[in-house]
Amino acid sequence: MFILETIAEIRDFVKIEKAGGKTVGFVPTMGYLHEGHLSLVKRAQKECGSVVVSIFVNPLQFGPKEDFSVYPRDLERDSRLLEECGVDAVFHPSDKEMYPGRHRTIVEVGGITGCLCGTSRPGHFQGVATVVTKLFNIVQPHRAYFGQKDAQQVLVIKKMVEDLNIPVEIIAAPTARENDGLAMSSRNVYLTSDQRLAAPILHKSLREAAGAVSSGERDVKKLVAMVSGIINGVEGASVDYVEVRSLPDLEEMVWLDVPALMALAVRFGKTRLIDNIILGE
Amino acid sequence: MFILETIAEIRDFVKIEKAGGKTVGFVPTMGYLHEGHLSLVKRAQKECGSVVVSIFVNPLQFGPKEDFSVYPRDLERDSRLLEECGVDAVFHPSDKEMYPGRHRTIVEVGGITGCLCGTSRPGHFQGVATVVTKLFNIVQPHRAYFGQKDAQQVLVIKKMVEDLNIPVEIIAAPTARENDGLAMSSRNVYLTSDQRLAAPILHKSLREAAGAVSSGERDVKKLVAMVSGIINGVEGASVDYVEVRSLPDLEEMVWLDVPALMALAVRFGKTRLIDNIILGE
Repeated sequence: MFILETIAEIRDFVKIEKAGGKTVGFVPTMGYLHEGHLSLVKRAQKECGSVVVSIFVNPLQFGPKEDFSVYPRDLERDSRLLEECGVDAVFHPSDKEMYPGRHRTIVEVGGITGCLCGTSRPGHFQGVATVVTKLFNIVQPHRAYFGQKDAQQVLVIKKMVEDLNIPVEIIAAPTARENDGLAMSSRNVYLTSDQRLAAPILHKSLREAAGAVSSGERDVKKLVAMVSGIINGVEGASVDYVEVRSLPDLEEMVWLDVPALMALAVRFGKTRLIDNIILGE
Repeated sequence: MFILETIAEIRDFVKIEKAGGKTVGFVPTMGYLHEGHLSLVKRAQKECGSVVVSIFVNPLQFGPKEDFSVYPRDLERDSRLLEECGVDAVFHPSDKEMYPGRHRTIVEVGGITGCLCGTSRPGHFQGVATVVTKLFNIVQPHRAYFGQKDAQQVLVIKKMVEDLNIPVEIIAAPTARENDGLAMSSRNVYLTSDQRLAAPILHKSLREAAGAVSSGERDVKKLVAMVSGIINGVEGASVDYVEVRSLPDLEEMVWLDVPALMALAVRFGKTRLIDNIILGE
């Protein structure tokens, strides 16, 4: 497995793979890999002859008060895991390689970034869209894989790719979960043991809402109140948002029109976790 | 020469050219071609094995009160000119092919779009950056050619390509001029015969400024006042802006630091013309 740190090197690598007739799959990550990332890698390996994983904690998508500097990093462990999977190349650029001078250009997806995590994290999706555009232009893969845990991110990237005619196929894979239902996330490592025990309530409450929908509930306010109520009943959990939005335009709704996205963000102390479910699937 | 109207067709065309080992050169235009466009085409033909010209009047880069609906169009004449040049393919998409649904994504280059034409035409460069990104992703050329007449546009596109790692080489070619010095522009057709006779004053005044710089003038205010004064002395000409800015960051300056860009926009009635010169070259 190659570990490449420059844009020139990863471009050369991909050029050779393509010249050899291989389909190139790409899994962009911020590292500190968990089973969720690895499930994306395995899916990419099934569907592509060559798989590139990027590891880059993108400063542009963190707010000034967010966890950029303390975001967990462990390149050695990540490299071992990817090597064991049989990944072909890791792209691990420095901040300077990605943003060498005065960076002036942003990619902005309007409308669908002004709600859910876009409200709590202004500028976040602009940072994501910009770095993903850069990574796509650098790696030039045939396909790119993203986890459904970041449901809004998947919608933003799909819309960006469609609007800008980016020649990449976007594939979203199901959220990987711990045995107790907690969505896998690099940020789970921030949780204290009490918070870790409480955190599965995110998924549990979303499943209860899905159950209510199965039983005929269509009143969005009631569904949101149900989930917020469950989570607020847990000590140490504080709801950032619970929302139900249309797909793929993320519009508000009063009466449920399925399939719809129910998404939430919850804080345990300083740690902010997200999860979601598709209602009516 | 192929005239292709769909994204799928032009992509297939370029794929075949690349598979045949050809370097693909691309000249994006809004049509109503003049010698300036054709000089870009000829330059592209010298340097590339296959040349694609796009003709698309991009609604996104026109303001609501600008000349989108009346912008001159003549596909038949354009096609004939390009065929005579020996162009390989013309990409002439409909508005619907380029913007099929609800377009939400924009590309914005900050800083250098907030002056010169960016002040007079808010949103213009966002529209340009967005459509050029789309066209690059559609055509995927090795090289793209732009005219120096739109000096700020060239700087914006170069910066965008650098910041977003777009795998295209940008080549700027000198402004093509009529015998009397008027910069060629599709908008020259709007001029009345009196305005047409007066219009060379744009280039003439810029050359006087360059002459003053050669003679040692370094006071930017004086240079700007000289050019504004010359143009305002011409009946029917009204200065939109005359500015001197640094290269490539388009920063203001008090004392000339060469090379610098002197650029202007002047209205003759409803017709707005632009021109520029590099001082100290």
